[in-house]
Amino acid sequence: MKINYPRNLEVTIKTIVWGENVHERTNKIVADLYPKGMHGCIAEALNQADDISATTATLQEPEHGLTQARLADTDVLIWWAHAAHSDVDDVVVQRVVEHVWAGMGLILLHSAHFSKVFKQLMGTACNLTWREAGERERLWVTSKNHPIVKGLPAYFELEYEEMYGEPFSVPEPLETVFISWFQGGEVFRSGLTYKRGAGNVFYFRPGHETYPTYHDANVQLVLRNAVRWAKNDKQRISTVNDAPNRSVQDSLEPLTERGAKLHADGDLGFK
Amino acid sequence: MKINYPRNLEVTIKTIVWGENVHERTNKIVADLYPKGMHGCIAEALNQADDISATTATLQEPEHGLTQARLADTDVLIWWAHAAHSDVDDVVVQRVVEHVWAGMGLILLHSAHFSKVFKQLMGTACNLTWREAGERERLWVTSKNHPIVKGLPAYFELEYEEMYGEPFSVPEPLETVFISWFQGGEVFRSGLTYKRGAGNVFYFRPGHETYPTYHDANVQLVLRNAVRWAKNDKQRISTVNDAPNRSVQDSLEPLTERGAKLHADGDLGFK
Amino acid sequence: MKINYPRNLEVTIKTIVWGENVHERTNKIVADLYPKGMHGCIAEALNQADDISATTATLQEPEHGLTQARLADTDVLIWWAHAAHSDVDDVVVQRVVEHVWAGMGLILLHSAHFSKVFKQLMGTACNLTWREAGERERLWVTSKNHPIVKGLPAYFELEYEEMYGEPFSVPEPLETVFISWFQGGEVFRSGLTYKRGAGNVFYFRPGHETYPTYHDANVQLVLRNAVRWAKNDKQRISTVNDAPNRSVQDSLEPLTERGAKLHADGDLGFK
Amino acid sequence: MKINYPRNLEVTIKTIVWGENVHERTNKIVADLYPKGMHGCIAEALNQADDISATTATLQEPEHGLTQARLADTDVLIWWAHAAHSDVDDVVVQRVVEHVWAGMGLILLHSAHFSKVFKQLMGTACNLTWREAGERERLWVTSKNHPIVKGLPAYFELEYEEMYGEPFSVPEPLETVFISWFQGGEVFRSGLTYKRGAGNVFYFRPGHETYPTYHDANVQLVLRNAVRWAKNDKQRISTVNDAPNRSVQDSLEPLTERGAKLHADGDLGFK
Repeated sequence: MKINYPRNLEVTIKTIVWGENVHERTNKIVADLYPKGMHGCIAEALNQADDISATTATLQEPEHGLTQARLADTDVLIWWAHAAHSDVDDVVVQRVVEHVWAGMGLILLHSAHFSKVFKQLMGTACNLTWREAGERERLWVTSKNHPIVKGLPAYFELEYEEMYGEPFSVPEPLETVFISWFQGGEVFRSGLTYKRGAGNVFYFRPGHETYPTYHDANVQLVLRNAVRWAKNDKQRISTVNDAPNRSVQDSLEPLTERGAKLHADGDLGFK
Repeated sequence: MKINYPRNLEVTIKTIVWGENVHERTNKIVADLYPKGMHGCIAEALNQADDISATTATLQEPEHGLTQARLADTDVLIWWAHAAHSDVDDVVVQRVVEHVWAGMGLILLHSAHFSKVFKQLMGTACNLTWREAGERERLWVTSKNHPIVKGLPAYFELEYEEMYGEPFSVPEPLETVFISWFQGGEVFRSGLTYKRGAGNVFYFRPGHETYPTYHDANVQLVLRNAVRWAKNDKQRISTVNDAPNRSVQDSLEPLTERGAKLHADGDLGFK
Repeated sequence: MKINYPRNLEVTIKTIVWGENVHERTNKIVADLYPKGMHGCIAEALNQADDISATTATLQEPEHGLTQARLADTDVLIWWAHAAHSDVDDVVVQRVVEHVWAGMGLILLHSAHFSKVFKQLMGTACNLTWREAGERERLWVTSKNHPIVKGLPAYFELEYEEMYGEPFSVPEPLETVFISWFQGGEVFRSGLTYKRGAGNVFYFRPGHETYPTYHDANVQLVLRNAVRWAKNDKQRISTVNDAPNRSVQDSLEPLTERGAKLHADGDLGFK
Repeated sequence: MKINYPRNLEVTIKTIVWGENVHERTNKIVADLYPKGMHGCIAEALNQADDISATTATLQEPEHGLTQARLADTDVLIWWAHAAHSDVDDVVVQRVVEHVWAGMGLILLHSAHFSKVFKQLMGTACNLTWREAGERERLWVTSKNHPIVKGLPAYFELEYEEMYGEPFSVPEPLETVFISWFQGGEVFRSGLTYKRGAGNVFYFRPGHETYPTYHDANVQLVLRNAVRWAKNDKQRISTVNDAPNRSVQDSLEPLTERGAKLHADGDLGFK
């Protein structure tokens, strides 16, 4: 051990909270609950942490606020959406997906299960059952001491939530972090981790817009933990789609070309 | 135990071998190796089994030979493609993907790692490194007694193959079944299982078109095993994209609606 | 395709239902519910299938009824135990574990979560929370069309069951097949698949001895499905603990020995 | 964001490097390569990092240097062993295992694949094939940007190593981080992550004692990264084996006891 100075003195985790920002402007209940938007509420909760620096972006901004330059300078993107999935530009979707592959963290909230970004990263339908009855949800921690549950008790409750029920059509996760119990009789895998390319992905279920979920202290704690978990310390990968040809001349072991060939030297391959 | 008659007397596994069928018609080497097409060679290898009934389909047929009716009557689809990924109609791609979600098995071969179907089901770039030098590949079994390796020794060799090298940008599989050693110094996860929706998915690496890989007895055995593994006995799911609303009135446990609502009863939800 | 005769005409799945057989003899409630023992009830349910041939074994028999010869001739072993885990001979435990590694299927029921066999195969404490209050359990299918859920609806209920609650200290499974909802507010991962060596392992939660769980039609269906899923068609592995030395002379690729050595040729290695 | 001061100013990761310390004292080659022992060499490599504070312990110390008090104050334990697995006291093995379950990180090196600790945590035989011929090993990174590969290129080589070959009898890992290519024709999954209870576990293959592996800069980098990855920030769990009864009176949802019972209130349950 040498001198014990902190490694990351200058570093905060650059986070964008992306909000669809539709119901906040069109529905009085949502507007009253989230006067700065759901994205604004979440960003404030994140910025209570010394090591997170959160800003916001919305659907209505040019390029939805998610330019190449901004994403390249972002560690973690949080995505909330519900009513306007189909309004998200496919070019921006592909851009976000490729930044995840390159190493950007991504956290998807609640109804973002049906976002283009999530569906593309999962490769499944991402469907489920649902009921909007303001029922009680109890989230149980299923992965002890996972970084995302740091500081949480064995379970926490949200008195008013929308129900999401299994089967949830997603691939088996790396780890199941939360499972929810619902008052009406359903269960749901509410916290799931994935890796896609170099990017860490976390789906977190709660957050129906007519309830005060993102004002809940436990939910805010999960979000701060998840941002830290999703951040990838390593440099972003620049060529996420390349399939480089390794030439015979530069092979790692002695190799003599033989047999029939399709490709000439230096060929880029088919895509 | 009652009388011991066979359960599946009448059943064979209905399998389509889909081939791009480009190099077989444009490249003399490939045409000589596979006079009936690679798809034809593979289908013959499958039909050596009493319990498999394999037919073929190609890119050049109307709807690429993959109509709704035909897919609905198919247990397992095998996909080989290389030069013409971009020529595959997006409508057919989505159709295949949804049949996998509904329970159809899917086996992707070699350069199908870059097919639209595989990329959509994986949610990753699916890229890798490669070299066409006719080098030796040795496939090691890494999942003992997996149904896909039934009858195989601990490893088998292909004297002439194209090299594919790690990193292979795919999600962590359910199980890693094969890992390949290449003469030039690379390794590759050559057999990977996944589940997407109700469908079993297997990626199998070997099969460059200028080599006689699909005439190899071990490769043919893997393909027959994989067809049996991928078949899903349960009835196909009909509504792979539905997210049904469960009403308060019909809730499984007593429930009283409360709190604010976005949706009226019977609402279909946003997508 | 050749002639379409059945492959497995002569084959039934040889299954042992192992029961601790304590409370059936000491507790009138249990004895009344299961006059032939819980193992007897389960074996009868399995033998309703044409392709399963189930027998029983109990703690009280010599070697607990699980001799080397009998296990070597068994495809799938089912394990129910509760009050007498510590009475199971460590020699038999190791024998069972090694047969699983060699390819025998294993299904562990309910309180077998604390059996020596399960704890050794999981490598974790396998603890949980519990409550014996005769409450309602609802098991939700979370893996669509998994072979183990064939013929089941989206969920099924057991009106009287003991509660098991998360966190359940087990490794992440290959697949989560069921998640239970409990009336008292807890959830539990009630169907989990694993592979250990060449053996398929399934943990299935329900089955408290004071309730009629194993008379339930859905539970019986799950057990029959699970036996079929757990059976491994491939020949049993005979040397599950060997770490064979591969000599330089017989190396697969040309190799010249170099550097310093600890071991002489033909050395067995350290264990 | 508030003031941006470092969160972990005072914290270093307390790490024990445990060495069997047999061949260092009995074999001149090993002694010359590792005059301070392999454990001493590894601890020095770790202490080059500002955020790691590594000490050593050996088989020959009382309680093998691994007292309850010391383990309770340890974030990460590294384990190297080869010739004397059977000399490790079962009491200490169980103690280490339970500290892992409670949240201590564990890194197992090379021939520790056959240690009692690893075998107990995996639940499998952990066997493999091997050859001591000083052959070239090339480790390929298979999980892009995993924390354990930070700062590494796509692959690195060890010119002299013992070969370990598949099949490696371990459970499917959370993630496969490295796969090795060997000159003699074998492959091996050389970096595997697991979670057991609350503890992170990493197996890393290289490190035969007659070669200078732990002097290699890339190997040392992997070890420092792995220590950071394995450290669990959350407080250690104190009751890793408890299965607490949740009483009906204190149930989270209204519940009336019914049905037959085995247990009286406050019963500890069977184990």
